[in-house]
Amino acid sequence: MAAEIVNPRSDSENRDASEQGGGAEPLESFDPAFALHRGGKMAVQATVPVRDKDDLSLAYTPGVAKVCSAIAEQPELVHDYTWKSSVVAVVTDGTAVLGLGDIGPEASLPVMEGKAILFKQFGGVDAVPLALSCTDVDEIVETVVRLAPSFGGVNLEDISAPRCFEIERRLQERLDIPVFHDDQHGTAVVTLAALRNAARLSGRPLGELRAVISGAGAAGVAIAKMLVEAGIGDVAVADRKGVVSRDRQDLTPIKAELASFTNKAGISGPLESALAGADVFIGVSGGTVPESAVASMAEGAFVFAMANPTPEVHPEVAHKYAAVVATGRSDFPNQINNVLAFPGIFAGALQVRASRITEGMKLAAAEALASVVGDDLAADYVIPSPFDERVAPAVTAAVAAAARAEGVARR
Amino acid sequence: MAAEIVNPRSDSENRDASEQGGGAEPLESFDPAFALHRGGKMAVQATVPVRDKDDLSLAYTPGVAKVCSAIAEQPELVHDYTWKSSVVAVVTDGTAVLGLGDIGPEASLPVMEGKAILFKQFGGVDAVPLALSCTDVDEIVETVVRLAPSFGGVNLEDISAPRCFEIERRLQERLDIPVFHDDQHGTAVVTLAALRNAARLSGRPLGELRAVISGAGAAGVAIAKMLVEAGIGDVAVADRKGVVSRDRQDLTPIKAELASFTNKAGISGPLESALAGADVFIGVSGGTVPESAVASMAEGAFVFAMANPTPEVHPEVAHKYAAVVATGRSDFPNQINNVLAFPGIFAGALQVRASRITEGMKLAAAEALASVVGDDLAADYVIPSPFDERVAPAVTAAVAAAARAEGVARR
Repeated sequence: MAAEIVNPRSDSENRDASEQGGGAEPLESFDPAFALHRGGKMAVQATVPVRDKDDLSLAYTPGVAKVCSAIAEQPELVHDYTWKSSVVAVVTDGTAVLGLGDIGPEASLPVMEGKAILFKQFGGVDAVPLALSCTDVDEIVETVVRLAPSFGGVNLEDISAPRCFEIERRLQERLDIPVFHDDQHGTAVVTLAALRNAARLSGRPLGELRAVISGAGAAGVAIAKMLVEAGIGDVAVADRKGVVSRDRQDLTPIKAELASFTNKAGISGPLESALAGADVFIGVSGGTVPESAVASMAEGAFVFAMANPTPEVHPEVAHKYAAVVATGRSDFPNQINNVLAFPGIFAGALQVRASRITEGMKLAAAEALASVVGDDLAADYVIPSPFDERVAPAVTAAVAAAARAEGVARR
Repeated sequence: MAAEIVNPRSDSENRDASEQGGGAEPLESFDPAFALHRGGKMAVQATVPVRDKDDLSLAYTPGVAKVCSAIAEQPELVHDYTWKSSVVAVVTDGTAVLGLGDIGPEASLPVMEGKAILFKQFGGVDAVPLALSCTDVDEIVETVVRLAPSFGGVNLEDISAPRCFEIERRLQERLDIPVFHDDQHGTAVVTLAALRNAARLSGRPLGELRAVISGAGAAGVAIAKMLVEAGIGDVAVADRKGVVSRDRQDLTPIKAELASFTNKAGISGPLESALAGADVFIGVSGGTVPESAVASMAEGAFVFAMANPTPEVHPEVAHKYAAVVATGRSDFPNQINNVLAFPGIFAGALQVRASRITEGMKLAAAEALASVVGDDLAADYVIPSPFDERVAPAVTAAVAAAARAEGVARR
C-alpha cells in the first residue's frame, strides 16, 4: 500500500550520497556500525489488516468505540484488547550509557533501540525506547507514572547510581506493572546463574563460597543483594576507596545498607585485601586488578571479570590461577550477557500479567538459565550462549511460574 | 528465533477459552471488533538482523558505542542513525475520545493504536500510542517535552477543548519538532480540500462563499481559522448557545478570539439565523439541524454534516436542497476522513525534518488532497477515498515542498 511509497526511512536510505550534505559518508566508511544504524534499527507494524473500509470500520471507527467503551467499564480488559500487556517502555535519561557515561538522551537512543530489538528478538516482547530529557528523580518518576497506562512493564536502563535505586523503588511503589532496572537485576541474574554452575562444577555449595565484588554501582549492589539472597557464604563489595565495611565514615545511604548485610568477615582496606583467599571475584567496575591479587585467591577460584571492553583481569591471566573464568565479552567463553535474562524475565512477567518482579522471580530466572547448561557443564561452559534458543523459553516459564507461586500473577 | 516461541501475545491468542476465565467470550461473540482487537493491533519489529554475535556486536555493544559517541559530539546525527525521524508519539489524555468523551487513558488506547497503524499503513510513519494518566495542562506539556528526544513529531489526539489549544501552543513553543493536534488541523485540512473542490465544481471562488460551522470545539475552531486563511468570504461559528459574535458576553478566550476574525456579517442568535442564505454548512457538533434550516440556505449550497455516527443532517435530506453533500461516514459518498491528511502531513514533515507544521504546509496539504480528484470531479466525488493510493504521496510531497519554501525544513 501507500506505506511503500512514502516511508520517510526508505527515502533516507535510498537517497544518493550527493544529497546527504557529505556529513555521513566519512562515518559510514569509517565503521560498518554506522551503515547498519542508518535510519534506526526498528519499526512499528500493524498486526491486523487495514486494506479496505470494512477493515477500517473494525480496527478504527466505528468498531473501535465498542472496545473503548468495554475497557472504560471493565478496566482490566485493556490487557486483552490492546498491546499494553505485550509492550515494555525502555526508559533512560542517558546518564550512564555503556562505558560512555552521561551522554544525554539523544546519544543514548542507539543503545535503547538495540535493547528494544533484543527484547523482540529474544523474548517476543515489544519495546519502545524512551530517552527522557530530564535527570531529576522526581521528574523521571512522575513522567514514567504518567506513561504507565500505555505499557505492561518498565525497563529502566543506563540511569546513573545512586539515582537509579530511588527511581526504581519509587516507581515500584507507585505502579502495578513490573519496573526493572536491567543494569542491576539483569546483570545479577546472569551472574548468579554462572556462579551456580561454576559451584556445581566444583562440587561446592554456594554457602561455602566467599565472593568479592569490585564496583558498588548499580550492578555491584544488585549482585551483592542477589548473592546473599541465594545463600552465598559471604560477599564483600569494594568501591574506589576500598572494601565497603561498617567502619567506613564516607558511605552513601546505599553503601551503608550494603555494609549492613555484606562483609561478614569485616575486611577493610583495598580490594586486594579482600581478594586474598577469596573464592570468587566479580568485576563490574571497569578498573584493573593486579595479577598478584588474582594469585592470592583461594585455589580453584572463579574469576568473572565482566568490564567491557577491557576485563578487570585478562582471561589469559585469570586462567593461570582460576578454575572458571567468565567475561562480558563475546569473543571469550562464558559471556555474562544481560540478554540471557531480561527478555525472558519480562516475557514471563507479561504472560501472567505480574504486578511486579519479585526476588523469587529473579532467583527462578537464574536457576532456569543455569539449568539450560545441563550435562554439558564445563569450565568454559557455565553459562549458555545468548543465541541458545532454549534460554528465553526456559526463563519465561520459570518466571511465570514463580510469579504465580508468589501471588503477583493476575492470570 | 526465540521470538516465535515465547511471544506473550501469541500465547494470549492461542490459549483456549477455558483458560480465559470466561470474561472475554461474550464480548467476542457479541461483536467482531473484539476478536480483531484481542492482543492489540500493533507490534514492534527489528529492521536490522540480530542472528549471531557479529550482528549483535554491530547493533548492540560494542559497535553501538561508536554511534552513540558520534551523536554525543554532533547531536543532529540522531536523525540519521536512530528511528527518531521516522517515529511520531500519538499522545492523548483520554478526555475527548471519539464521541465517547472522557473515558480515561486505558480506554482510549484502542483508538491510539488504531491511529498508529493508520500512520504506518497510509504514511509509512512509525507511531507509538502514549495515553497519559494526567489531564493537567502543565503536566501534559512537561511530560511531552521530556519525551521529545525520542520522537520526530508529536500527534496530539482526543484531548478536550479548550485545554487542547493551550497544550498544542505551548508544546510548539518549547519543541523543535512538529506538534500537531489532528482533531483540529487534520479535520480542517480535509474539510478545506473538499470545500475547494465543491467550489470548483460550482464555478464559484472561495471568496464569494459564506460558511456556517456548527461546533466551536477543537475541529470547529481549526476549520474556521483555516477557511479564513484560505480566503473564504465569511464564516460564522455556532456553539450550543448560538452564533459566536462580538456582542456575546459569555465567550471563553478561544471563542473571543474566534469572534474577532469570523462573522463579518455580525449575525447573532441561533445557528438557524446564520444558516439562512448561507452557502456552506459544516457540522462538527454532533447536534441535529432541522430540515427547515437546511432549506433556508442559498441555492446550490454545500452541506458537510460530519458528525459520527449520526450526521447533523441526514444525506437524503441534505440532497433535497444542496448541490454537494459530504459526511464523516464511509457508507456515503464524500467521506471527510482525517486519514486523508495526517499520514502524509507527518510523512512530509519528517522527510525534510521540519521543525514545525506551518499554516502554509497545511494549506499545501489541502490543495494536494483536492487535486487528487482532478478531472473526475463530481458532486459525489469532491474528496478522494481514504484508500486512494495517490493521496499520501501527493500530500507528502506537497508538505515537504511547502516546509522547504517556508524555511522550516532542516534538509
